[in-house]
Amino acid sequence: MTIAQQQIQLARRPQGVPVHEDFRFETISIPEPKQGEVLVKTLYVSVDPYMRGRMQDTKSYVEPFALDEALSGGVIAEVMSDGDKLKQGEIVIGNLNWQEYSAVSESAVRKIDTSLAPASAYLGILGMTGLTAYFGLLDIGRPKEGETVVVSGAAGAVGSAVGQIAKIKGAHVVGIAGSDDKIDYLKNELQFDEAINYKTADDIQKALADACPNGVDVYFDNVGGPISDAVMNLLNEFARIPVCGAISSYNAENEADDMGPRVQSKLIKTKALMQGFIVSDYSDRFPEGAKQLAEWLRDGKLHYEETITEGFENIPDAFLGLFKGENKGKQLIKVSDPS
Amino acid sequence: MTIAQQQIQLARRPQGVPVHEDFRFETISIPEPKQGEVLVKTLYVSVDPYMRGRMQDTKSYVEPFALDEALSGGVIAEVMSDGDKLKQGEIVIGNLNWQEYSAVSESAVRKIDTSLAPASAYLGILGMTGLTAYFGLLDIGRPKEGETVVVSGAAGAVGSAVGQIAKIKGAHVVGIAGSDDKIDYLKNELQFDEAINYKTADDIQKALADACPNGVDVYFDNVGGPISDAVMNLLNEFARIPVCGAISSYNAENEADDMGPRVQSKLIKTKALMQGFIVSDYSDRFPEGAKQLAEWLRDGKLHYEETITEGFENIPDAFLGLFKGENKGKQLIKVSDPS
Repeated sequence: MTIAQQQIQLARRPQGVPVHEDFRFETISIPEPKQGEVLVKTLYVSVDPYMRGRMQDTKSYVEPFALDEALSGGVIAEVMSDGDKLKQGEIVIGNLNWQEYSAVSESAVRKIDTSLAPASAYLGILGMTGLTAYFGLLDIGRPKEGETVVVSGAAGAVGSAVGQIAKIKGAHVVGIAGSDDKIDYLKNELQFDEAINYKTADDIQKALADACPNGVDVYFDNVGGPISDAVMNLLNEFARIPVCGAISSYNAENEADDMGPRVQSKLIKTKALMQGFIVSDYSDRFPEGAKQLAEWLRDGKLHYEETITEGFENIPDAFLGLFKGENKGKQLIKVSDPS
Repeated sequence: MTIAQQQIQLARRPQGVPVHEDFRFETISIPEPKQGEVLVKTLYVSVDPYMRGRMQDTKSYVEPFALDEALSGGVIAEVMSDGDKLKQGEIVIGNLNWQEYSAVSESAVRKIDTSLAPASAYLGILGMTGLTAYFGLLDIGRPKEGETVVVSGAAGAVGSAVGQIAKIKGAHVVGIAGSDDKIDYLKNELQFDEAINYKTADDIQKALADACPNGVDVYFDNVGGPISDAVMNLLNEFARIPVCGAISSYNAENEADDMGPRVQSKLIKTKALMQGFIVSDYSDRFPEGAKQLAEWLRDGKLHYEETITEGFENIPDAFLGLFKGENKGKQLIKVSDPS
């Protein structure tokens, strides 16, 4: 084992779209685990759009990342030393720094069962992204059989799970995504009823109206921006809008960069509900969600894709790719193989 | 009794802000009540901002008004002929045409108790406006003691009730209105904690921040537009926003006239809820609300203002005045005295 390793830090707060210069690779030593800690080796790192928000120094639901300190997020790791409870060779998940090795409290990570699904699935369909889809759709969206559910960012990790769960619930499911490859995936692999390529549609409003002849009962909003503006014109009475992400706004530097038609009169006309949420609002119900997702996965009712980038050094690139719509399904970085 | 009377019809659908030419006074005969009907004489007519929406020929929660037919709305009337249940001289409320006399089904109107409150109160604090405040604030807003409640259109019929109910519930109440006279009324008569004149404030955003040092937990939105844009920047975690009216948008001819900062990222950051509603969503709970409002009124905890314009011929003027912020409290037109 080497005694030096790489860590990725936030070098500066991004202005608009993040760039390479916002990240810094720092060589640090591999830490010695203290009492109650174990040494873990990073196997997979998750990069997620919400991290863009943490790079700003503004009030939000999670603390901003500190400047000149390590970035962090969902990580799958291998235990490299025996602890009180964890044993060498076990695979764990936790919120860990972007570095190759970490010394972590045994209580800060959770052992996962890789006989049920591959380790990487715990950063996706069986992890925060699957749970985000599950609770946002079922607790806020509450689709009923025969209703129309529209999901934006539909080929992404959350969106693809949302659409499939909506199908399980008997809804007419319409996905919005940004490439023909993704549209093909949604319609032919995930069995969405309709899928719209917003980049090539002549008129997104008309394409949506055609795909939703009975209007929109649930809009699972992953993107914000002009796509959401268009969906808001098709709401049915008592529509529900779980607001999960606004990737189109995350890089806006100020309000003037994210202007659109106001929603108030649309909400009044339809008596619709819009609600922002994050998955941790539902942490006391995670076991329920994880159990149901694992059952659907086992029964072949739920499929997932991963875009796996190889190499620790490519973490920033993979993160930046999220904002270019490069990933299909969950974007992960494979840092190392288990020993 | 004369045999001819006046009726006000929708002459054309308004373009932008309604004008006199959108209304037509038509002379019609006084109808003969049929079996099951009574003849009633109009005493008070209510004009309300939501009626602007019904003048458009667009899908909304209520049917559009028909062109070249009578406009209608909340009316207090006197029964002029004995029916099966109703007796001559009784005072009733109902949704009736804008005309001086109507023949109405006995089941289409409801007798009111004018010993409890003046007849006009049933078009305001004890009627749809009071119930709108009650259910929107308590069912969607759910203010807790010590929380900050902001209400726009605060000196209007709904807004002034919202603020007072929020005070009853122990909230820090901030009203937004458009004249010094209204500000004085909110602070000194209704005991709002703070009141902001949006027309004279140098910086509405700063004025709001000063009035809400602990952020905003509930925003009862009566107006939409730039005032609401500013409030949306001060939301606390899990804020609730009952969206009741968007008077600033009702005259917008298209989306381009009602653009503002998008709300999605603000809802996500704060995990806030926005919900459009109309009072009829709560019709099965009206008795509960009406009873509570009457108790508060009797106990002196609830005050209300009326702006009463005299004369049937002034109904259009009184309606147009709503969009100029001319009224304080409920805007009514007194058409005649009881016999």
